[in-house]
Amino acid sequence: MADQYEVSETGAGTLAIPSLRWEEFPESPAVVLLDQTRLPAEEVELVCTDVPALVQAIQTLAVRGAPLLGIAGAYGVALAAVRGFDVEEAAEALASARPTAVNLGYGVRRAVTAYRRAAAGGDGAEAAAAALAEARAVHAEDVEASARMAQHGLDLLGELLPGGGHRILTHCNTGALVSGGEGTALAVALAVHRAGELRRLWVDETRPLLQGARLTAYEAARAGMAYTVLADGAAGSLFAAGEVDAVLIGADRIAADGAVANKIGSYPLAVLARHHRVPFVVVAPTSTVDLETKEGAAIEVEQRPGKEVTEFSLPHIQGGGVVGGTGIPVAPLGALAYNPAFDVTPAELVTAIVTEAGVVSPVTRERLADVCSVSRWRKSRSGNGMMAE
Amino acid sequence: MADQYEVSETGAGTLAIPSLRWEEFPESPAVVLLDQTRLPAEEVELVCTDVPALVQAIQTLAVRGAPLLGIAGAYGVALAAVRGFDVEEAAEALASARPTAVNLGYGVRRAVTAYRRAAAGGDGAEAAAAALAEARAVHAEDVEASARMAQHGLDLLGELLPGGGHRILTHCNTGALVSGGEGTALAVALAVHRAGELRRLWVDETRPLLQGARLTAYEAARAGMAYTVLADGAAGSLFAAGEVDAVLIGADRIAADGAVANKIGSYPLAVLARHHRVPFVVVAPTSTVDLETKEGAAIEVEQRPGKEVTEFSLPHIQGGGVVGGTGIPVAPLGALAYNPAFDVTPAELVTAIVTEAGVVSPVTRERLADVCSVSRWRKSRSGNGMMAE
Repeated sequence: MADQYEVSETGAGTLAIPSLRWEEFPESPAVVLLDQTRLPAEEVELVCTDVPALVQAIQTLAVRGAPLLGIAGAYGVALAAVRGFDVEEAAEALASARPTAVNLGYGVRRAVTAYRRAAAGGDGAEAAAAALAEARAVHAEDVEASARMAQHGLDLLGELLPGGGHRILTHCNTGALVSGGEGTALAVALAVHRAGELRRLWVDETRPLLQGARLTAYEAARAGMAYTVLADGAAGSLFAAGEVDAVLIGADRIAADGAVANKIGSYPLAVLARHHRVPFVVVAPTSTVDLETKEGAAIEVEQRPGKEVTEFSLPHIQGGGVVGGTGIPVAPLGALAYNPAFDVTPAELVTAIVTEAGVVSPVTRERLADVCSVSRWRKSRSGNGMMAE
Repeated sequence: MADQYEVSETGAGTLAIPSLRWEEFPESPAVVLLDQTRLPAEEVELVCTDVPALVQAIQTLAVRGAPLLGIAGAYGVALAAVRGFDVEEAAEALASARPTAVNLGYGVRRAVTAYRRAAAGGDGAEAAAAALAEARAVHAEDVEASARMAQHGLDLLGELLPGGGHRILTHCNTGALVSGGEGTALAVALAVHRAGELRRLWVDETRPLLQGARLTAYEAARAGMAYTVLADGAAGSLFAAGEVDAVLIGADRIAADGAVANKIGSYPLAVLARHHRVPFVVVAPTSTVDLETKEGAAIEVEQRPGKEVTEFSLPHIQGGGVVGGTGIPVAPLGALAYNPAFDVTPAELVTAIVTEAGVVSPVTRERLADVCSVSRWRKSRSGNGMMAE
């Protein structure tokens, strides 16, 4: 089936520079990242030649987005292996860099499993090569998954909204910047755009870190989509005015019951969508589904520093820095802030989950498990070691 | 009834400096405003010695909030009259400075009506004095209305939430900064706090201009309330976690059918509150009710500059300025933004409207008209010329 999708090796999609690549510099191999904290003002690459640098890049959100974190985690393990560092220690540091992102642990496990299997033969260089090959496989699979999700999502919207001319609301950033390919929800919007059916992409700015205004708008502008940015709270009046035909979001973790953890501010959109009978569609690879997490309530939600809310801070402003720097205070000194990175939308508010292996709708525990098992069977057949996971 | 409420002449409430005062400087009379765009970083007063300066202060949100705009409008008319400018022209400029705020027009009309009546006698000085006296009356009435709303709101919450220990979510700023007194919704929260029943005040930051993080947090901190700031999109997970007992908001205009126009982001809270069966309470003086506007759909919603969303801008940062200045771009150059100042919540999502004349619940056209007629009858009896309006 894979040959029906066009996939590029870099998977840069709408970007001038790929969001992540493996580079063999003469001095050292490296994971090279497009620094997302500096967008849209600057396109700057961040070269990580060891795992601590990569962990920091993950924690500061220089690299972010569920699928891309999986790729970063896998390459991180490979980086430790190729450079002769302690692979198990590196894997642990990478997997725990951000708690909610299941893909991160998934990518790390894939590379570690390949490494261990090869290392059992006693040859360190071979084991490192196996880890790198597995990281490249995770990357390539994500490129393909992205293309499949885009096609499935396009088809689904065609069924849900037969009139065409879709006005799509999206939240956070889910495009080429989060993926080896063109992303998840934004890849679907891009497919809609290429099919000539996108009337408007409504881009939630996505406080506190403004991934919508900064990153989704950047990708939408590069792709020539008709887009409009709005404050997150303004989405309600768009729904009330009948200006939203569908909501498309990504996911950071999907529990076995179909509950979706995604960027804070997603759940209010789900409630608004239900109130206005608008489809609420989640686009995510099956690697985002965590069947070990039985239900939404069990998802651990990362609490981020309150400063992200009480100070305004971007790296390209003086004294700024998304984490650690001193921003411009917007609240009184000493103000407490509640700043969860994600919220959890229960399955009953989700119209459909679009994966690379098919569309889950209605979202039930059984259908979700089915689509994951299909996907895992495929991967085990293609020799990527999923059965060993 | 008025004597049962403690009201101060300045009505500064939680503030060190009153939000608005009339001052007779030797050179000129002036309307002196606490410049709200500079809070919480600086407490700076803005001295308006003519109506164009005051109109600009209204448009840049240096002075804002429904009741305070009414007071500002009335004093603006008085200022034109006392200084011998064209009163009718001044009144028109003031009334149209912001389209959604009904109180602005209300305050202007009150002062103009008093002016015209006195001017009919031919004495300009007497007419100016009448306009000023009427502005002072609008101011004093607002101080009293604020105290009454606080008491009615406190009583209502006691009924709705008999367990006490309220966790109140609020949006935008509705305290002493918007009022001659202690405000509307925040005045209720303050009364709850003084009664020892406030467990937590959840403060929506309120994008794009951050009136919650900047102004409500400032007032809450000054009053010693237990408060926490959050990004607007984070309210959903608070509801989901059962952490919100009631939503309290103000209003910029209430139509005859009980539909409430308030700061953008209010409507999503109403939908969330309904989904989670949490009371959604609007606190506003009857001067906010516009019986001429038959229904919510007829409310004209002010569209503000897109730059407020696509650029980050505060007056105390270099190059900043909420309107007109050049902020820090957070979206790509040329990005369009949808930036309505308000949204409209239909009556069926509003648990109660708390006014100075009583509580309207359930919110129906008839009950709303009743409470307004009681209020207007009271005012006509106290000789404030409401019957002539």
